[in-house]
Formats: sequence, structure tokens, C-alpha cells
Amino acid sequence: MKRLLLISNSISYGKGYLDHCEDAIMNFLGEIRSLLFIPYALYDLDNYFSTVEKRFGKMGIKTSPIHNADPLEAIKKAKGFFVGGGNTFRLLKKMNDSELIKPMRDAVLNGIPYIGISAGINLASPTIKTTNDMPIVFPGSLDALNLISFQINPHYIDPDPSSTHKGETREQRIKEFHEENDTPVIGLYEGSWIRAENDSITIEGKKGAKLFRKGEKPILLKNGPIVL
Amino acid sequence: MKRLLLISNSISYGKGYLDHCEDAIMNFLGEIRSLLFIPYALYDLDNYFSTVEKRFGKMGIKTSPIHNADPLEAIKKAKGFFVGGGNTFRLLKKMNDSELIKPMRDAVLNGIPYIGISAGINLASPTIKTTNDMPIVFPGSLDALNLISFQINPHYIDPDPSSTHKGETREQRIKEFHEENDTPVIGLYEGSWIRAENDSITIEGKKGAKLFRKGEKPILLKNGPIVL
Repeated sequence: MKRLLLISNSISYGKGYLDHCEDAIMNFLGEIRSLLFIPYALYDLDNYFSTVEKRFGKMGIKTSPIHNADPLEAIKKAKGFFVGGGNTFRLLKKMNDSELIKPMRDAVLNGIPYIGISAGINLASPTIKTTNDMPIVFPGSLDALNLISFQINPHYIDPDPSSTHKGETREQRIKEFHEENDTPVIGLYEGSWIRAENDSITIEGKKGAKLFRKGEKPILLKNGPIVL
Repeated sequence: MKRLLLISNSISYGKGYLDHCEDAIMNFLGEIRSLLFIPYALYDLDNYFSTVEKRFGKMGIKTSPIHNADPLEAIKKAKGFFVGGGNTFRLLKKMNDSELIKPMRDAVLNGIPYIGISAGINLASPTIKTTNDMPIVFPGSLDALNLISFQINPHYIDPDPSSTHKGETREQRIKEFHEENDTPVIGLYEGSWIRAENDSITIEGKKGAKLFRKGEKPILLKNGPIVL
């Protein structure tokens, strides 16, 4: 009994915060009307909470921020988790410093639903090794909540054939990951999300995803259930 | 007595490997005709060395690869270092695993010239916290050679005003770095390099650079000496 909603991005081009995924969040939450919010990926925690509180309030969902509570108690009492985007290294460092990885993992394995966006989906992965973020702080380890059996790369974007920039493309970066690791990677386009319920994994949203396996050509994933 | 040539990128659009910076490398090396090559940022070390050996051979420079030697002895005997690009986390992990950070730092502080490109300039910085690379392996620490007093972001690129992608821009990532760190960051455009000789720092090449200081607006740096 494990339920996760893993969303590539919180703002889609031309839309407001969470607008593109509001229906998916409401559908995923069902009867649940309160969430514990984990804002650690951003620097200004109170400001972040203010945005989140208003936006979820409009949806009839009460949010409470972990940084204004005893974090361990808050995790134990939570009816659902919302882990927001920002910098993944900062998020993981605060989770590690406060020893929250195991309690949160246990809670989700016991059926507490988990909504993660961007950095929040890197945190749900086995490791944060497929984040796009700059390593602005040292998190002590790259191991994350390990709630799914694959890695996700949020904000996935295909190479731009007209680009003259010679930095690595996202595809090249994921190939580098597979030079050193075996775990499959789902590159999740902006506008897409993954619903993972027990062993069932479904791609939903606007644009699908791309599956990268070590040593194989990437495969385009359309919306619907997938088998990894 | 400390000499570094720190090059943003090894291939410029439409040119071959090292073509855009060949003159700068020759000028920097002066009478030196042999380099110890550090290929650890890429996966296939022998293949990487083959490319480097040929390219430097055309310039009359003999290169020898650290991975075919006793690395500590090779560092002690080197007349100059060339640290090539690739994945910075992989590069730093191999340097840490082999305990090469201190010996290499000592050699450069004793006057052995250092040429670094891309990941090789992240390695010369105080930390690798301003790399663009994916954290595909855990390097044990983010501390690097600390041969300069500032951070460099290689392959620096300005935000694209026409983009509909909502992932962080490079400027936003460097701003996140300054939420957690104080060190100035030089965003080095592709085609540019920095010559650092003792306390003298000079921007050279095609396009200049951008200086980011904590809490201040970024400043465009033209070619020429700069004071940090």
C-alpha cells in the first residue's frame, strides 16, 4: 500500500502555480484534506509556505509546514505529504541533517500518500543522482527516500538541434549516469506526472516521458501504464 | 608562483577539439613540451587519451596519461597538468579515492602549470559546487583543489528569453549557490578562458564572462585583468 504522485514541474508555461496539475492532485488525494508541506528545497521557508498555503487553500486543502513543528511528530501525524521543488541538494541535506529520511519512507510505505514536484520527485527516487540541480550544499550522501524502483529526471527536455551551445544535453547527462549506474531513468517532460501505486506505474499529463535503460536506445512513453 | 589556464569548453561550435584555444595553450606553456593528462572525468580513459595524445601531438606537446602510471609518482614528476572535461563528480571521486587532491595542489602551488577545461576548471575551484554536471557518483566531499579564490561556472549561458522551459536558468542556479555560500562566481561563456598567475586574473578569449557576487546584480566582464 504505497501511493505517490510525482510531478515534473510546478509551473507550466503561461499558467499559474500548480494550475496544470490541480485536477490530478485532487483526484489523487480523494477524501484527504490536509497535507504536511516540506519546503526545504527553497531558501525562504515561510515565503514558500505562504504561496503553498494559499494555492492549496483554493483547492480546499489545508497545508501545514514541517519547519514550524516538531518534524518527526509532524511526519508521524501526517495524512499526506507535499514535497515542493527547489534545489534537491538543499532538500536532501535538511532531510539528512534532521534524520527524516527513514521516518518519511516508513510513513509512505505504510500508506500515507506522497506528492512530490521537481526536487520532490528526486527525493522519492532511490538516489538524487538524476537531479538537474547545482550541488550548492553537501548533503552527506546521495541516497534518497527510495520509494520507487527507478530514477526520475524532472523537467526533461530533448536536445535542441539548433543549439550552438556545447555543454552536455540532458540525454548525454543521463548516458553518463548509466556509465556508472544500472537503474532505469524516466525523463519526465514538463507537463507530465507519474502515478505510482504499489507496483502499478502510470504516465499521465500532457507530453509523456522518455525511458532510458543502460546500453539501450531511449524509448518514448505515451500516457498509460508502464512496466519497468 | 602559481599558474593556471582555465578554459570554459574544449569544442567551440563549428570547430574541432581545442581549435579555439590552441594559441592560448601554446602561449601559456611557453617552453614546456610535456603534460600529465588527467582523463578521470570521462568513462573511457584510453579512448580519451588517444584523442588528447593526437591533438597535443599536433601542437608538438607530449602527453602521458595518469591512469597508465603510478599516479602519485606521475604528479610529482609532471612538468604541467592537463585536466580534461567530462563529469565533475566522477573526476573528483577518482581524485579523492586515489588521494591525489593534496599532491596535485602542492605541485601547482610549487609552480607546475595547470590547464583545466570544463570539469577541469571546476576541479581547480575551491569546491565543485558550481558545476553543471549530474551527480552520477558520490565523490565523498565537494571540496576541490582550491587553487583560486573564486568559483567558476563553465559553459555559462544567459537565460533564453524565448524559452518556454520552466527549469532553473543558469543565473537562477548561481543565485541558489549564493543563498548558501559567499564565494564570488565567474560564469565563463563558451569561447572564454581565465589566466590566473599568482594573484593576477585575466579574462581572455571570445566573449568575456559574467561576475556574480552574493546579493549583487551580475556584472559583465570584458577581456582583461580583473580584481575580485
